[in-house]
Amino acid sequence: MKKTVLFIIYALLTLPIMAQKKSFTIDDLIPGGSTYYQHSVPENKNLAWWGDECIELDTDECRLINKQSGKTTTLITLQQLNTILTDAGHKPCHHFYYTTFPYAEKPLILIENGNEQTLVNWQEGKTEWHITLDAQASNADWSKESRAMAYTINHNLFVQTADGTTHTVSSDGNIDLTYGESVHRDEFGISKGTYWNPNGTLLAFYKMDQSMVTKYPQINLETPGKCATTIPDPYPMAGNTSHKVYVGIFNPATGQTVYLNTGDPTDRYFTNIAWSPDGKKLYLIELNRDQNHGSLDEYDAATGEKLRTLFTESNDKYFEPHAPIQFLPWDDTKFIYQTRKDGYNHLYLYDTDGNCLKQLTDGTFEIIKVLGFNKIKKTILYTSNEQDPLQQNIFKVDMKGKRTLLGHATGWHNATLSESGSYFYDNYSAPDIARRIDIVPTGSSKPAALSYFTAPNPWDAFQVPEIKTGTLKAADGVTDLYYRLILPTNFDPTQQYPAIVYVYGGPHAHNIDASRNWGARGWDIWMAQQGYIMFCLDNRGSEHRGLAFEQATFRQLGVEEMKDQLCGVDYLKSLPYVDSTRLGVHGWSFGGFMTTSLMTTYPEVFKVGVAGGPVIDWRFYEVMYGERYMDTPQSNPEGYRSTSLLNKAKNLKGRLLVIHGGNDPVCVPQHTLSFMRACIDADTYPDLFIYPGDGHNMTGTDRIHLHHVITRYFEDHLK
Amino acid sequence: MKKTVLFIIYALLTLPIMAQKKSFTIDDLIPGGSTYYQHSVPENKNLAWWGDECIELDTDECRLINKQSGKTTTLITLQQLNTILTDAGHKPCHHFYYTTFPYAEKPLILIENGNEQTLVNWQEGKTEWHITLDAQASNADWSKESRAMAYTINHNLFVQTADGTTHTVSSDGNIDLTYGESVHRDEFGISKGTYWNPNGTLLAFYKMDQSMVTKYPQINLETPGKCATTIPDPYPMAGNTSHKVYVGIFNPATGQTVYLNTGDPTDRYFTNIAWSPDGKKLYLIELNRDQNHGSLDEYDAATGEKLRTLFTESNDKYFEPHAPIQFLPWDDTKFIYQTRKDGYNHLYLYDTDGNCLKQLTDGTFEIIKVLGFNKIKKTILYTSNEQDPLQQNIFKVDMKGKRTLLGHATGWHNATLSESGSYFYDNYSAPDIARRIDIVPTGSSKPAALSYFTAPNPWDAFQVPEIKTGTLKAADGVTDLYYRLILPTNFDPTQQYPAIVYVYGGPHAHNIDASRNWGARGWDIWMAQQGYIMFCLDNRGSEHRGLAFEQATFRQLGVEEMKDQLCGVDYLKSLPYVDSTRLGVHGWSFGGFMTTSLMTTYPEVFKVGVAGGPVIDWRFYEVMYGERYMDTPQSNPEGYRSTSLLNKAKNLKGRLLVIHGGNDPVCVPQHTLSFMRACIDADTYPDLFIYPGDGHNMTGTDRIHLHHVITRYFEDHLK
Repeated sequence: MKKTVLFIIYALLTLPIMAQKKSFTIDDLIPGGSTYYQHSVPENKNLAWWGDECIELDTDECRLINKQSGKTTTLITLQQLNTILTDAGHKPCHHFYYTTFPYAEKPLILIENGNEQTLVNWQEGKTEWHITLDAQASNADWSKESRAMAYTINHNLFVQTADGTTHTVSSDGNIDLTYGESVHRDEFGISKGTYWNPNGTLLAFYKMDQSMVTKYPQINLETPGKCATTIPDPYPMAGNTSHKVYVGIFNPATGQTVYLNTGDPTDRYFTNIAWSPDGKKLYLIELNRDQNHGSLDEYDAATGEKLRTLFTESNDKYFEPHAPIQFLPWDDTKFIYQTRKDGYNHLYLYDTDGNCLKQLTDGTFEIIKVLGFNKIKKTILYTSNEQDPLQQNIFKVDMKGKRTLLGHATGWHNATLSESGSYFYDNYSAPDIARRIDIVPTGSSKPAALSYFTAPNPWDAFQVPEIKTGTLKAADGVTDLYYRLILPTNFDPTQQYPAIVYVYGGPHAHNIDASRNWGARGWDIWMAQQGYIMFCLDNRGSEHRGLAFEQATFRQLGVEEMKDQLCGVDYLKSLPYVDSTRLGVHGWSFGGFMTTSLMTTYPEVFKVGVAGGPVIDWRFYEVMYGERYMDTPQSNPEGYRSTSLLNKAKNLKGRLLVIHGGNDPVCVPQHTLSFMRACIDADTYPDLFIYPGDGHNMTGTDRIHLHHVITRYFEDHLK
Repeated sequence: MKKTVLFIIYALLTLPIMAQKKSFTIDDLIPGGSTYYQHSVPENKNLAWWGDECIELDTDECRLINKQSGKTTTLITLQQLNTILTDAGHKPCHHFYYTTFPYAEKPLILIENGNEQTLVNWQEGKTEWHITLDAQASNADWSKESRAMAYTINHNLFVQTADGTTHTVSSDGNIDLTYGESVHRDEFGISKGTYWNPNGTLLAFYKMDQSMVTKYPQINLETPGKCATTIPDPYPMAGNTSHKVYVGIFNPATGQTVYLNTGDPTDRYFTNIAWSPDGKKLYLIELNRDQNHGSLDEYDAATGEKLRTLFTESNDKYFEPHAPIQFLPWDDTKFIYQTRKDGYNHLYLYDTDGNCLKQLTDGTFEIIKVLGFNKIKKTILYTSNEQDPLQQNIFKVDMKGKRTLLGHATGWHNATLSESGSYFYDNYSAPDIARRIDIVPTGSSKPAALSYFTAPNPWDAFQVPEIKTGTLKAADGVTDLYYRLILPTNFDPTQQYPAIVYVYGGPHAHNIDASRNWGARGWDIWMAQQGYIMFCLDNRGSEHRGLAFEQATFRQLGVEEMKDQLCGVDYLKSLPYVDSTRLGVHGWSFGGFMTTSLMTTYPEVFKVGVAGGPVIDWRFYEVMYGERYMDTPQSNPEGYRSTSLLNKAKNLKGRLLVIHGGNDPVCVPQHTLSFMRACIDADTYPDLFIYPGDGHNMTGTDRIHLHHVITRYFEDHLK
């Protein structure tokens, strides 16, 4: 009896507590937080393709997935794998996460385990191939055809062939002369420096001479108790002497390298390297320094001689190729070329004589990425936002130009094709879907897509603020812009709240999409919980809305973008629950530039701003990105002058905290330091914080610290 | 009638307004402010001696002062001077401020006018000697006897003799190898690099090799729109390899240089250079790197050979000579040596065999500076704080040790002797005296001192807060410490006010003295006007209180100093009108170290701190100053560890703004940057501001900006 009473009391006490949802901590919401993975990242499954078979990679085993039923059967356990590895004298593995199955027809699993890579035949229980890379090696690039491995050590390039021979491709590499590394500061879609031909017999690679480039002095405080030193970092600033890039082709069979005979590479960009299917010709898109003219050029891989220019493309403002040509797997004489020449990024079918055979896709939407081909059905698989400008869906298009949506019709999709392209697995989210993984056939609607995994929403236990989206008109009066509005947790429409605009605003990025929670950032949720209205608007200049939308900002970065943001502010001010006297703004990188621009161009609008890693003057930004949008300081002095925040420092009225990574190699600390100097000289009063040793973004626990600093600034001055 | 009524109304309205005193602006109070000279600096008169005649140097004329009546007669007008100068082909002068009268018996006036120096005979109306220095020349040092001029250009030393011949004393000078410049980072009283012998026939000079010294990378943002560069600055950090110093003697007659044969100069300090009266022997005080042992050494100026060591001096903690020996003008065999070997700095009479003949002064006070000699009466003139630890007065002592106070008995005095030492003029202030200038005879009380000038108090028109001083016991329970307390303007003892401790606390400095307004700083007055109580305490370790008082801090800088400051805080808390929950602290340099130490050692005491140019870890400070007080990191690891604020970063609780000159060459920016890193790692939250391009202190309008920043921080967080 007594126990029962106690139980009832206990139940009465705990029930409402259990029903009440929790508040977030900052660690729950920001990457680097101790509880971030637990409370903000939806559970995931690692999948991989073995030919057209889908495999789930888990900690202790690989499982073959039945694509109809979703049932799994064990392929190999970690214990079995490690027995094979250790028997062969290699390190044991801790999980299967970085595992691939390179050969559709063979029971071979490629294990990447630190600096060791091993190809294991799990049916025969033996290793087929193995390499132990030097501890300093990076940029490892393996050809599954020849089983040759390219890698770099200290800016030099090496190739180890399947027979174990190591070729020293270069030996004079250093910070000023790099081999096998990415070039042109990762612009034009370049993200690596080595390119095996299809059969793995020739390796194209980038060489970059930056001895003539100004060195930015990065300060190194890393040795405890010792005097600071500098690390000179080659950084070509807009209008200044740039680096020179060469393309070499190494032949492991002969040990010889030929360089493409391009002539003097000064002020030329060699981008979008692609091999012909027979591995004998190399294609690249060359671009002039002005970035308004390009040509698709074909080179002979054996001699390095240029064979021909297939075609050229120009643009009044800028031409920016970012996808290499892709040959049709079923026809070596035809390839896909992506261009925005009709105003949106679309797919065009070309023949190897440079004739455009057909525009395969068209419309006022953008092809975001070509995923590959269904080699059997002869279709191209790609992602696009045709369904909705906020979505990214999977489509196929056949050679007649017929487009078909594949898989789930809403949200933001990321697909990985199987070997033949007959299937993809799609790891996606939507505003109300935390994560789902579907396995989808691409040939026809049968067999039906398999819904393999649905993750619980990690925020189910938390009080999540209301997140809305909508459109408003840009400053041009015609263009629709998308915004996201997050209401304070426990919103009361009769109250007035301070509002913070989060802004990026630059090209090649967007903030609002139809992914989980409409793409809301963890810090947005955190600030909503602190009682702020959070607003974000993707202004003209941002991505996936077509060329005119992006190029509206040409030669005057920030100007049109700010006008659009002010339209967002007008909308905010129209809301009865927004306190127009307490508006804040925060952004990082281009968003730091926007924040500082807004604070100094519209000083009466924003009371408080926090700008992170900002561009302050485009003269201090690098050649490739900077000159694309701004031309050079010599050819566009007025554009550089009028957008320079050094000239606007005098206008600062509100409270502005500028934060910079002390060793930011992207947007060098000179930006923020020069702005401080300009404000001091102009008798204005920004605040400052520096993260010594950090780069363009703070990661790990520094990111938590950063968001405490940002939050505190708004709490100090906007609340 | 109507007019009369209006006038009465007008008078009624304006009378109280006219009677009311003004409030200060920050520009009134801080050096660099637009109204600082007008509203804070008492009017001044520039005086000079011509033999024993006193001259007033004005803009448009020099006036001879009658030392009895104070009446003046014109000596030469600017117009007359400029006629002579321009007739001789030289630049005209704008005023007489930097003019001297080198020869007691001759009507010669030495005009320093930019890079031109001219000796003018005003009676004959002609020039006697002239030099036009190279525009890049610095460290000009002229012998009035030989009329030879030494100077440096780009770290090389040159001598131009009276006949116009220019000798290149060195030609291999650079930042790593300096000639004729100050050495040992201006410690040990060194402030220049050339020393003419009494007859101007030999020039002793310093040479310093710092090629082996670590270079601190100072960032240079000076070229508008160009990539930052580094200026490597040789900076020997505690415990690291230091520079090597040599003493050369150049003979213009032979064009030859001999270097003192000291042997290997590694880890040795050559300080306090003095010439024998006959100009043939050179004396210096050599000190070991440990700075606990020194010797007075005599060298032959012709050969550079060491003749003998006259005597040595040691100290358990440190021995710090800072005044060269001074020969008696009337006896070439005797000199004055200053030492604190009895616990206070006193004067000792030595003969040239190194025998101590007499301790001329003694007592629990300090000789601050020897001014010179009355050559006729054979007395020594000096300043000391014998009258009161807060005062600096002028005294004479005869060869029997009889001391006599000269001139005004209170306040803070600065005297300049006449040629024979029979007179001095004394430019002084006291708590209630803005500025007075007296002309005082040193021989006897007749003729009486002349009160030549009394400046009006520039603060008479302003509301000045009440400034009090007093003593309280140090943490040792016995030592008296002096404090200054400034009450808020319009103080109401029934209210409670926030209080800010201003602190320096390091050696060789004090904050409270009996000069104008008890030495209160302009910012103290500004903050008192904003409603803060301003408090300052000269803790143990500060100057003019004797050796034991200073050396209490040895090998653990900050520890005892903080304990004393906490005694000050206890006193503040005992005052009913102090709000103990709103205590702030601010200091610069050593005071920045103290501020940061206090905020992180006693985090419950202070709510807000502003630390400027702080030492954060003595490992980052230079060898000469740092090792004197802290020994080396190798020999005192516990002292360095326990005083390092990198290890205390984790304790920060209150709001702490750290400010640093972006190019501080004294306390390098590494201190503050490393502290930021330590706080980020420790999850604590300081604020930061950097003044790019500025050094250890901000000057000019930057200083006004700085004090707005400091003020705003307290207003934001302490008010």
